[in-house]
Parts: sequence; structure tokens; C-alpha cells
Amino acid sequence: MTFSPCGVITLTSDFGHRGPFVGVMKGQILVRFPAARIIDFTHEIHAHWPVEAGFWLARSYRYFPEGSVHVAVVDPGVGSSRSIVALEADGHLFLAPDNGLLAPLQAQVRLAKGDASEVEARAFRLDSTFLHGLRLPRPSATFHGRDIFAPVAAELAAGRHAPESLGPLIEELVPSWVEEPAESRDQVSGIVITLDNFGNLITNIESRRVQRFRQPVVRTGNQEFLLRRTYSDAKPGDYLALVNSFDVVEIARVEQSAAEGLGVGRGAPVLVSDKIP
Amino acid sequence: MTFSPCGVITLTSDFGHRGPFVGVMKGQILVRFPAARIIDFTHEIHAHWPVEAGFWLARSYRYFPEGSVHVAVVDPGVGSSRSIVALEADGHLFLAPDNGLLAPLQAQVRLAKGDASEVEARAFRLDSTFLHGLRLPRPSATFHGRDIFAPVAAELAAGRHAPESLGPLIEELVPSWVEEPAESRDQVSGIVITLDNFGNLITNIESRRVQRFRQPVVRTGNQEFLLRRTYSDAKPGDYLALVNSFDVVEIARVEQSAAEGLGVGRGAPVLVSDKIP
Amino acid sequence: MTFSPCGVITLTSDFGHRGPFVGVMKGQILVRFPAARIIDFTHEIHAHWPVEAGFWLARSYRYFPEGSVHVAVVDPGVGSSRSIVALEADGHLFLAPDNGLLAPLQAQVRLAKGDASEVEARAFRLDSTFLHGLRLPRPSATFHGRDIFAPVAAELAAGRHAPESLGPLIEELVPSWVEEPAESRDQVSGIVITLDNFGNLITNIESRRVQRFRQPVVRTGNQEFLLRRTYSDAKPGDYLALVNSFDVVEIARVEQSAAEGLGVGRGAPVLVSDKIP
Repeated sequence: MTFSPCGVITLTSDFGHRGPFVGVMKGQILVRFPAARIIDFTHEIHAHWPVEAGFWLARSYRYFPEGSVHVAVVDPGVGSSRSIVALEADGHLFLAPDNGLLAPLQAQVRLAKGDASEVEARAFRLDSTFLHGLRLPRPSATFHGRDIFAPVAAELAAGRHAPESLGPLIEELVPSWVEEPAESRDQVSGIVITLDNFGNLITNIESRRVQRFRQPVVRTGNQEFLLRRTYSDAKPGDYLALVNSFDVVEIARVEQSAAEGLGVGRGAPVLVSDKIP
Repeated sequence: MTFSPCGVITLTSDFGHRGPFVGVMKGQILVRFPAARIIDFTHEIHAHWPVEAGFWLARSYRYFPEGSVHVAVVDPGVGSSRSIVALEADGHLFLAPDNGLLAPLQAQVRLAKGDASEVEARAFRLDSTFLHGLRLPRPSATFHGRDIFAPVAAELAAGRHAPESLGPLIEELVPSWVEEPAESRDQVSGIVITLDNFGNLITNIESRRVQRFRQPVVRTGNQEFLLRRTYSDAKPGDYLALVNSFDVVEIARVEQSAAEGLGVGRGAPVLVSDKIP
Repeated sequence: MTFSPCGVITLTSDFGHRGPFVGVMKGQILVRFPAARIIDFTHEIHAHWPVEAGFWLARSYRYFPEGSVHVAVVDPGVGSSRSIVALEADGHLFLAPDNGLLAPLQAQVRLAKGDASEVEARAFRLDSTFLHGLRLPRPSATFHGRDIFAPVAAELAAGRHAPESLGPLIEELVPSWVEEPAESRDQVSGIVITLDNFGNLITNIESRRVQRFRQPVVRTGNQEFLLRRTYSDAKPGDYLALVNSFDVVEIARVEQSAAEGLGVGRGAPVLVSDKIP
């Protein structure tokens, strides 16, 4: 499915909501594409951690209209020689620094290698020829979200430029900072990728990796939890594990914060095995 | 006044701004209703506390255009047998779990009981027939905001389905978790429902309940405060009470946080009486 | 360049995202101007500190479309006798309490004094005649954002009223609470105006003030930092100073919080001088 813009642009960043950073990105989009429908995906990605942005985007983009442009700026290397890349996949377009952020999306598709006849996904490196064509002011060294990502996203979402006009097709993206979960005969081992607002611990262990267990037990922080269906299957204050609505294993505490209760946070190892091996 | 959709959808939740939760709700709205105008009411409702959501919506909906759909997802019972209800009232439509959230709205209107000739408000329970008709994917057990509320709100706001098509008319909603303020001969007693960003303590005591006092005194946390007109009627650092812009009693500290200064928070009892009884 | 509305309204406040405050402002805008495109500039201005709002707006408005209406409500004097003013400058319109907030914008332009032939900027004081004409309900004493700013902004952005219809032309605005940086022969001295989400310390010292130094050294909190080009010019954990993307001196710590590391925050003095005087 090739990309055909629908006018929606989603924004993901670690900028938070202090200061003008998100606002001026939207301003720069509207300057070039007044009819853009801009949606904040989230601006509270853990600072300087592209892993979380890619994790959520890979599991969420299907909930947006086909033809959306997803801009993700978690960019500790801004101003260095890192590239900016666009990934066209499944009818959506992703624009991000080439720092591993897009790896979880790439893992879901197959990057085209020249033969366009069976394209599932294509990646392009933004080059200076394209940028010159936009007649952008000289970009700052520290805020490419405003100076490059926003205007480029506006052009793509407005349909004035196709993804392949951005620059050369590339066959590989920078890999993720975090490895895929490891599976052995008896267990699966992953990590806590992030927390949500309720203090639920969200792992990178997909449901398909634990389906082979008859009675899966989830271990983290020296405790273990049985896998339930939903929060209300346990009592307030109780811990539980479940496969959440983004199809990964999550550890929760009913109506309280599992993260605080367990003293466990981002990056903590998580194991899943069978209760009776 | 019956509901006639204007295309505006407001969103209320306790999701905060971390993760993709609010973003994918908006994505699911745009998939079904690309012209929706989506407004964040707030996503910082105190976690798992529907009381606050209903409190603010009841006091705020009139500031939105007639024909708005107000979606409120504060839903600790998600995945359990709790119902989802739509309340049509005063030309607006409210969609929420039936967990007491909508009780403050219901208290402002009179629920119709069959006789449509003098309807002021009507409540409907969302049923599976309607959901099947939308051809939704099977909803997750833990995120009905994305899987049910967003698509249903989109259909209603787009005018493709009327509120009465959602399911059966019901005559009662689940009551609020918090009682109305109690009035005795000498005093009114309520509670702090929530804080705002400035640390002001916002109570559930409406101005009409204190009008009978010649010189109202507000007591909480072992201190008492005279009722003033506005913040600038006292000096920076001073405490005061006032009837705020949502017509309830509020305890404030000028240019500082009353909550921090008094060590008082959500749920604290508040009494109003006459200075000279 | 005179103001010709483009339909964009930006909102700036210290309301944060708790409660209905930002939401109902948007509701009141949509009631009067359903086609408004509303952009949150930021709602996390330091509470009761108009200085930060004006600082960011003055350095950011150019990134929004010409004809934008910028509403800024940081308003500790709400309900007192402070005025509300509109500043028309450079094709944009700013609406704010007259409490010093707009001073940084005024400093960038020249206020017209009667002779309209060479107008660069004009300021108007909102008067009661205009407000009566809008047939607003009686405004509350504590929330003019909803009761005055939002409807007035909607009227201006919709093009139904021109800035000069708001009230009398005024020749002076209330000055800023913070002085411009002081320049002596050997150094420039300013302050930290605000922090961003990463803990970077953002000063009011513009790049033009330090261009005379051959090798600028930035001092704050008993430490000194060399001026670099971008974050990736230093190692993770290192401190550095740079001219940021809003053209002011900033003190940063690579991939960490300079504010936390140095124990320095808003208002701290900052000096820039030459390494070898």
C-alpha cells in the first residue's frame, strides 16, 4: 500500500509542554499547509530515549487514518551528522532522526531493496538538495523539529512532494538501542520500556511470545504475577500482569502505581515463564 | 433542547499525556469523522476518580458549542460488566462509563421517564447491537477509550447515528461517589473536590448554598478564611476564600499554593458558616 | 504590515493542563468562531510570571502564520483594575493583560504615536464599550481567559472586528518586570528566564550581545562554560553553553539536566565575558 496523504500529521517528541517548542512546530506546519490536521501523539517520551517513541508508534500508527504523516523528534544527536529519514510503510509515512527510533517499525515490515514491484516499505534519507528546494532559512544547530521536520512534514502531508523526492532510497536504518526479547526453551526475557500515567509497567514482550505457556508467570523486581485479562480481575491494591491493549505484557497494580509499589522502572528486566515448568 | 451535532468532540480522561493513549483516541475519531474538531477538555483528572470529571463537565459544558459530544473516560472498571451510557442534556451529549461520572450532570437535569413530550434529558445504555453495527474490531479488555468511546463519539458527532440508536433508554444512572454538601441550620459542609494548577482548593459547595450567610467564613485544615471577591483583594502570601468562576467556593493563597501551604488536598472537609452566628 | 486575520489563534497561559481552564477557553472561541484553528503555544508558563510568556512570544511569533492572534493569559491581577491590551505588530496581533507581559514584543517594534503613516506597531486598550457590543455575560472576577480573552480573540480572528475597534490607541504599555541585560566594557549580565523540559537554563542574553567577545565564557552558579555550537559538541554529562535556536545564550548538560546538576533555576544571574580579557 503506497502512501497517499490524508492531511493528518501526528507529532511525537520528548519536549514536554514547557516552552514554545511544540507550538512553533505547529506554527511552521500551518505556514506551509494551513489545512493540516495536527494531532499530538505524545510529547512526554522519556528525554533522549528514541526507543520509547518507536515502541509506541509501531504499536499505534494503525489507529490513525491511512495517509498520516508521523513526525517523531527524539533527537539527542541534533546538529551532529546523524541523518533524517522517512519510512513509508503500510500506507503511513514516518519522519524521524535515523537514530534507531524507527527500528521497531522497520522490524514490522520488509524494507524494499530496489525492486519496487513488491514494495512493503521504503526508506529515504533526507538530502540537502530537497531541503534547498524548500528554500528554508538556515536551520539552527539545536532545533530541527521546528527548522526541518515541521516544514518537511507539511510538504509531504500537503501532497506537494512524494516521499521518494526527499533523497536516496536506503536499505538499512540505524538499529534500535534495545534488543528484541530473548526466548529460550523455558522463558522469555524482555524489559520495561516505559510507564504510563497510572504507573503501569509496559514491557516489550508481545503476546505471541507467551502464548506457548499454559499458565504464564511474569517476574520483575523479585516478585511474580499471574497473567489476568483486565484490571478489574483483581482487587484494588493487588498486583497483576496482563496483555495490554497494545498487545504487550504489562504489570499493573489495581488503582495504584505498580512502578512505585515495586520500585521498578524503565529498563528493568522482565521474565515470563510457565508456572509449572 | 434536543441534541443536534455540531462536529465538536471534547475529551476528558485520567490518561495524562504520557504514551499514545490520548493520541490514538483522536486517531480513531478522525478515521470515522475526518472533519471532527477535537478539543482536549483535560486529561489530568485525578487517576481513577470519576468524581472530578463529572464535577468539571457539569460546570463547564455550557462554554462549548451546542451539539458538542463530550467523551469522558475515567474508567477503573474497564473490562468489567460496567455499562457505557450516553446522556443527552441541554443540547449536549455526554458519553461515559456508568460509574457515577455523569451523576453531577444528571443532578442538573431531569431524566425523562418514557414521556418524550417534556424531555429535558435522556440517558441511553450502549448495547452490543449498536456496537456490532459499527463493525468495530473486538475491543481490548483494558482500553475502551480507543476501542469503543472514540468510534462511537465519532459516529454521534458526525450525525450518522442519533443518541437513541445506541441502546435502551434508562431511567437511572449510577450515583456519584461523593454526596452533595450537607446543609444544617448553621453551616454547610462539603469537600475539596480537586486542586488547580495554582494549588487552589476547589470545593463542591455552590454559591447558592452560602448566600444565606451575612459574612461567610470558610473552614478547612483548622483554619478559617473570609470570603472575598477575587485574588487581588488580598496581599501575596495571604489566604482567602472566594466563589470562583465555576460558582463554587474555593480556598486560595495569593500567588502561592494554598494546598501546599495548608497541607490540605482532595477529599478534605470544608465548612462554611456565618462569622457571627 | 497591518494585521489581516488568518484564522489561527495561539493560546499561552500558566494554567497547566489540570481542570477545565484551557478547554473552556477553546469552547468559548469555537462558539463564536467555529472555523478557528487553535494552537496551544504553552500552558506551562511559570505560575504568575508574565515575563516568561512575553519572552517566548517575542522570540516565537514569527514561526506562526501572518494574521495569527496570540492570546496570553498570565494574569495575577485578574479582577483588579489592570487593563487588557491588544498589540498589533508585524502582521500579528497579541492580546494580554497590561502587566508587562507584552513588553518584550514592544521592545522589538516602535509604538505608533498618532501618525498612522509610518505605523510599525499599535497598541489598544480594550474598553467597556467594545465589550458591551459583544453582549458577553457579566465576566467572573477570576477567569477573564474564558470570559473576555477567548471571545474577544474569536471576534478578532474571525475578522468581525478590527484591532482599532477594541478601544483607545495607547502610547505606552506597562514595562517588563525584568530589566534588559546590562552591558559593561568587559561583560554582559543577564538572568535565567526559564528552563525547558530537559533542564536547560535559558537566559535573556541575545547572541548580538556576546558577538564582541573572541572566546565567550558563560558564568552561573560559580561555574563557567565555554560557548559551543550544539549539544553533541560535548560528551554526555558535560556542561556547555550555546546560543540556542531562539538566539539567546543557554546553559546545558548533555543528555542531563543542567538545572539539577548546577542547582540553578529561574532568576539566577548569568554573566558572559571573554575568556582572555
